[in-house]
Amino acid sequence: MATLRRLLLRPSRRRRHHSTTTTTATTTASPQSLSSPTFAVFGANTGVGKTLVSAGLVASLLSSPSPSTVSYLKPLQTGFPSDSDSRFVFRRAPSLLPAAGGAAARLVASNHTLFPSPAVDPLPEREDTVVSYGGEGVGVEKALVCRTMYAWREAVSPHLAAEREGMMVEDEEVRWLVERWLAEDGDGDGEVWKVLETAGGVASPGPSGTLQCDLYRSSRLPAVLVGDGRLGGISSTLSAYETLLLRGYDVGSVILEDRGLSNDRFLYSYLRKSLLKDSLQSFHSRRIQRLNSMQRKSKDLLWWPFTQHDLVPVDSVTVKDKTIVPQFDACASWWTQGPDSNLQIELARDMGYAAARYGHVMFPENVHEPSLRCAELLLSGVGKDWASRVYFSDNGSTAIEIALKMAFRKYASDHGILVDGEKNITRESTQFKVLALNGSYHGDTLGAMEAQAPSAYTSFLQQPWYSGRGLFLDPPTVYIGNKTTHLSIPPSIWQDQLSSCDSLIQGAGGMHMIDPLFQRLLIEECKKRKIPVIFDEVFTGFWRLGVESASELLGCLPDISCYAKLMTGGIVPLAATLATEAVFEAFRSDSKLTALLHGHSYTAHPMGCTAAVKAIQWYKDPSTNSNFDLDHIKLKELWDSALVNHLSSLPNVKRVVSLGTLCAIELKAEGSDAGYASLHASSLVQQLRQEDNIYARPLGNVIYLMCGPCTTRDSCTRQLTKVQRRLENLN
Amino acid sequence: MATLRRLLLRPSRRRRHHSTTTTTATTTASPQSLSSPTFAVFGANTGVGKTLVSAGLVASLLSSPSPSTVSYLKPLQTGFPSDSDSRFVFRRAPSLLPAAGGAAARLVASNHTLFPSPAVDPLPEREDTVVSYGGEGVGVEKALVCRTMYAWREAVSPHLAAEREGMMVEDEEVRWLVERWLAEDGDGDGEVWKVLETAGGVASPGPSGTLQCDLYRSSRLPAVLVGDGRLGGISSTLSAYETLLLRGYDVGSVILEDRGLSNDRFLYSYLRKSLLKDSLQSFHSRRIQRLNSMQRKSKDLLWWPFTQHDLVPVDSVTVKDKTIVPQFDACASWWTQGPDSNLQIELARDMGYAAARYGHVMFPENVHEPSLRCAELLLSGVGKDWASRVYFSDNGSTAIEIALKMAFRKYASDHGILVDGEKNITRESTQFKVLALNGSYHGDTLGAMEAQAPSAYTSFLQQPWYSGRGLFLDPPTVYIGNKTTHLSIPPSIWQDQLSSCDSLIQGAGGMHMIDPLFQRLLIEECKKRKIPVIFDEVFTGFWRLGVESASELLGCLPDISCYAKLMTGGIVPLAATLATEAVFEAFRSDSKLTALLHGHSYTAHPMGCTAAVKAIQWYKDPSTNSNFDLDHIKLKELWDSALVNHLSSLPNVKRVVSLGTLCAIELKAEGSDAGYASLHASSLVQQLRQEDNIYARPLGNVIYLMCGPCTTRDSCTRQLTKVQRRLENLN
Repeated sequence: MATLRRLLLRPSRRRRHHSTTTTTATTTASPQSLSSPTFAVFGANTGVGKTLVSAGLVASLLSSPSPSTVSYLKPLQTGFPSDSDSRFVFRRAPSLLPAAGGAAARLVASNHTLFPSPAVDPLPEREDTVVSYGGEGVGVEKALVCRTMYAWREAVSPHLAAEREGMMVEDEEVRWLVERWLAEDGDGDGEVWKVLETAGGVASPGPSGTLQCDLYRSSRLPAVLVGDGRLGGISSTLSAYETLLLRGYDVGSVILEDRGLSNDRFLYSYLRKSLLKDSLQSFHSRRIQRLNSMQRKSKDLLWWPFTQHDLVPVDSVTVKDKTIVPQFDACASWWTQGPDSNLQIELARDMGYAAARYGHVMFPENVHEPSLRCAELLLSGVGKDWASRVYFSDNGSTAIEIALKMAFRKYASDHGILVDGEKNITRESTQFKVLALNGSYHGDTLGAMEAQAPSAYTSFLQQPWYSGRGLFLDPPTVYIGNKTTHLSIPPSIWQDQLSSCDSLIQGAGGMHMIDPLFQRLLIEECKKRKIPVIFDEVFTGFWRLGVESASELLGCLPDISCYAKLMTGGIVPLAATLATEAVFEAFRSDSKLTALLHGHSYTAHPMGCTAAVKAIQWYKDPSTNSNFDLDHIKLKELWDSALVNHLSSLPNVKRVVSLGTLCAIELKAEGSDAGYASLHASSLVQQLRQEDNIYARPLGNVIYLMCGPCTTRDSCTRQLTKVQRRLENLN
Repeated sequence: MATLRRLLLRPSRRRRHHSTTTTTATTTASPQSLSSPTFAVFGANTGVGKTLVSAGLVASLLSSPSPSTVSYLKPLQTGFPSDSDSRFVFRRAPSLLPAAGGAAARLVASNHTLFPSPAVDPLPEREDTVVSYGGEGVGVEKALVCRTMYAWREAVSPHLAAEREGMMVEDEEVRWLVERWLAEDGDGDGEVWKVLETAGGVASPGPSGTLQCDLYRSSRLPAVLVGDGRLGGISSTLSAYETLLLRGYDVGSVILEDRGLSNDRFLYSYLRKSLLKDSLQSFHSRRIQRLNSMQRKSKDLLWWPFTQHDLVPVDSVTVKDKTIVPQFDACASWWTQGPDSNLQIELARDMGYAAARYGHVMFPENVHEPSLRCAELLLSGVGKDWASRVYFSDNGSTAIEIALKMAFRKYASDHGILVDGEKNITRESTQFKVLALNGSYHGDTLGAMEAQAPSAYTSFLQQPWYSGRGLFLDPPTVYIGNKTTHLSIPPSIWQDQLSSCDSLIQGAGGMHMIDPLFQRLLIEECKKRKIPVIFDEVFTGFWRLGVESASELLGCLPDISCYAKLMTGGIVPLAATLATEAVFEAFRSDSKLTALLHGHSYTAHPMGCTAAVKAIQWYKDPSTNSNFDLDHIKLKELWDSALVNHLSSLPNVKRVVSLGTLCAIELKAEGSDAGYASLHASSLVQQLRQEDNIYARPLGNVIYLMCGPCTTRDSCTRQLTKVQRRLENLN
């Protein structure tokens, strides 16, 4: 079949490098051309006149000056060959063109079918015709190419026909062919404009059972919705419209047949959307104009975090949504990304539901189902066997600020500092410090900054109020170097401290894996001295390291821990600080003044909690996450160990850390090439982005691949192999 | 018609005080009883057998042991009287009961119509019947009450029939009657179980044009969806299902007629949802069980912000979603709430779209349409004439932390502190302080705390690291007391400062309105000395004070300003820090180290930006916000000035501040009754919550009403009148 494909679908001559990183898909099809209009025609129902609209649209596009070719595609056809929408368009569209006058133009039209099912009888021939039409200059020749991709004999839904006729088609196959089609150029210099007609209604199943709206979602084609002009058609048209919106489609037009019920009038006023197909071209050109201006405008109006704007050339700004090459997102979108595309659809639906059902809830003294369900899942998951309370906030940084406030109070309470009430102590007489690690990072608000050791993030330039209120240790680290596991031990000293901020992997600090034995001994020592222990799991939580919580790897438990990032599957900000009941007790009294007076307007917002409920369950359900090993309650190994060992032995590699969803590689570098400001890994990263479809960001001289908890091992191996090739060719 | 209502619908004997504050609706209908099952039957389309399913459901409920009465309601009927779903159920349901054996039970059934349109001919009589049936004990008597609310003659959509037959019905009227029906008890001791059958498909228009799914949304009835068993029915059933989800409905069951197309099999596997009506009762009981356990569980598992848990009795916890009395939310949901119910529906749809289209976007060096559009709206709105850059973060507190970092750098740059690079200065030699106001509040992370004067929020108990790095002034304030505008001037002193944090209304500090002239002079003085000025507009932004930005009232502009809360219409957290180009310039160089290194994982997340784009536009569009005065670019006056003056003259009132969406009233109080920990206003607040359907929270001895930018003046007057009555009767 692969050979057949090559014969029938011409490869693209263009190649672009803009990207989307919203999925971790690894398809490497060529991108659709943005400059030529392409529309997907969806139906509110079967029998609403989708094909008639497609024929009209094709004729209208052919009549426009720009395109030299209009390409029509019917990916899935049942009832074939007696029903053939492609044949209908092939025959009907030319008749809708202006009649030929004196100066006739020529239209060369064709219709053919790629893959008829074995049951199709008779097999149709390819059809070709040349017609003359008017309204354009002498010698003008245009082409109309009509194609059916897969065709089945029975006039039933494709998922039934595919089963009954023994021609099953995987979604990947359909998408691959559609993407090739999208990438096709015409024969001449002119543009190719395209129309794709879906099968049945917006949510009708394709051959695998995947809905039409889901099957074509990754292509992000502007949609034309053919509504239902019949009685009851307002309802089905609006519902179909919402189904498309819930998949992220831009619906450029809604078109419907007038059956005297004024459905059009109602829909027009309700949707405030044009019902005219003439508007499609202006919709397209406005969209393109906007996308093209976005790079410039973003440079002028936005202020990106962690970014020196002068170092970002205008044309290197990635416009999300602009083109459709799915890349492997090696940053897991700032370490937040959990969803596969199925999860994303479910999250989108949940987000709509939660927004409609709850709106905003002022949280104190109130409870709503998503917040409670989320708390239950946290306490029975990452907080299992130790935590009994959940304090919600907005991001990792606020979760840490809250954790510190909890730890201070607990320490004060355990050590009698507040026994006689506040008036007996002064701020001067008691100095609270955290015991933390050099190289650690806990967020950018001042309290979170104070708990980390001095670095570029905490310089006077960044926040003159920072003083570094901690005792910062150099921890031993673990890594693979030259196929051998190494333990790196620094000259380490330490003394009495008050509180502890802790994490097994230092993320922003350069992807160092701290020796778990060291961690454990440190924690045990803190516990002996009644120093509350905080686990900063903003990065490590939710299967990042192959287990739900890093505490499983350490073999010991904290008093307080912080979560965010992966918790909501990458959809909306939400954070949670978990605590033991003993920590909670330190705030109890009969006075509001001793309560923890920290909150944000959107604390425990229902959308965030709803997303978290879905994501937390999704990651550890074998029916939704094939990586999940139910017997051992952990993720299967995602990185091929032989490959990891091989990488660690390359001459330009200093160390490799591979654990759970993370594989980090430190390049050998000296002096100014090391550290956060380093540009050493840049050329490697550029190659990965531009040649290998891997969206990576360096951390100084460290590059890393990070996947989601649901990314397949196969995909991880493919990406790691690409990195291996680049490293072997570097310098 | 009001008299007629009283005759036909019996008022409830029960009254409950749980509440929802997710809308600012002011309906005062009695709540539905939670304990008896009620279902709304929706159709995927017209003609899918909704009425047959309703009849079967009614019969099935009648066969259950618990209910003594089953009440069926058809709110909207067209094609009447030849079509009458209520009559169909009245006649059909009894025939579906078990046949009468020896020990026959009795069913007393009735059917009647409340409001037939003038065109209905002939007018139907009320029907009554008594039938015997089997399977229950001797002497058992049950009742079936079938009713049609509004009926039109023509068999077209209600919005057309209503227009043609001259019987228009407002949504409020329909909802009022439905709520009365929901609140009805039976005649005997047994329970009343209820079935409401909608008209047409889920998104078919009602008489006013409002969709079925929107018309009944506020009642939060569990939905039964009757799917479409015909060809194409999978698509319309799934789309209808998603339309209900997007309105926040819980869909308990999907039922469909088998037409041999296996639609049911596909839908079952896709939705993993029961298709059996038998499951409805267990769905109901699970739901009730869960809701009933939520108060206890929330006390055990959650840790609420700003809350001393011991002071919250279990039964005072409000379970959002539990009952359906819409209250006036006088806190505007922690000052975030903007939406009317139309905006909420649009936001829900937008949230689904954004979640599906964008997922997570790692923001640095990237741009997506919602972030750019949001930045444009901010710069042309609250940032008009001064701001040129938008820095996104997650909440007001992070927006302030970022603003401070910007101000410090700008000051350092303007005053040559960093001229020779960081190495030439030490932290000790330069102490940065903010010039701020006593009583101000800017958030709970440490940096934001440092910019506010010492208070209960900043005590050693709360955050031992707080030191109060500011020079805090006592500002003059403005208020209405005894019908006269007062200016209160404290003994004020001040000297050279480094930066300024500023806001026109002090929210959490007790709703004080700072003298704008004082503010303006202070700002002018800062500007002369090149001290960067920050406006904290987290509370005051977006029409809170009647204008989009408080700068319009002050008549001067900041260098930096902060926004959150109302910006996203109360849906998701998002914040923005705006800055002048001169501030941005202070971070430019060729080194990443001088860039502003502050960010959060979900910076500029597409869902937040999408919500902000919708909300910001909605507030200032006269077609969506009837309060918006386009000629003067401000909100109309919402609080009746005569009433405000009267309140200010009451003996127990110290001062009143009324501006834009805010009306705050300080009660006279002495000693421990004053201030944040005060319980003085508690009894008043309890009365407002329990008797007046106003959800208020006190700030010490200050109570306030806060509405959204779209709340009508009529509604404000009604609430203020209730407060007036309570104040007149207090003590």
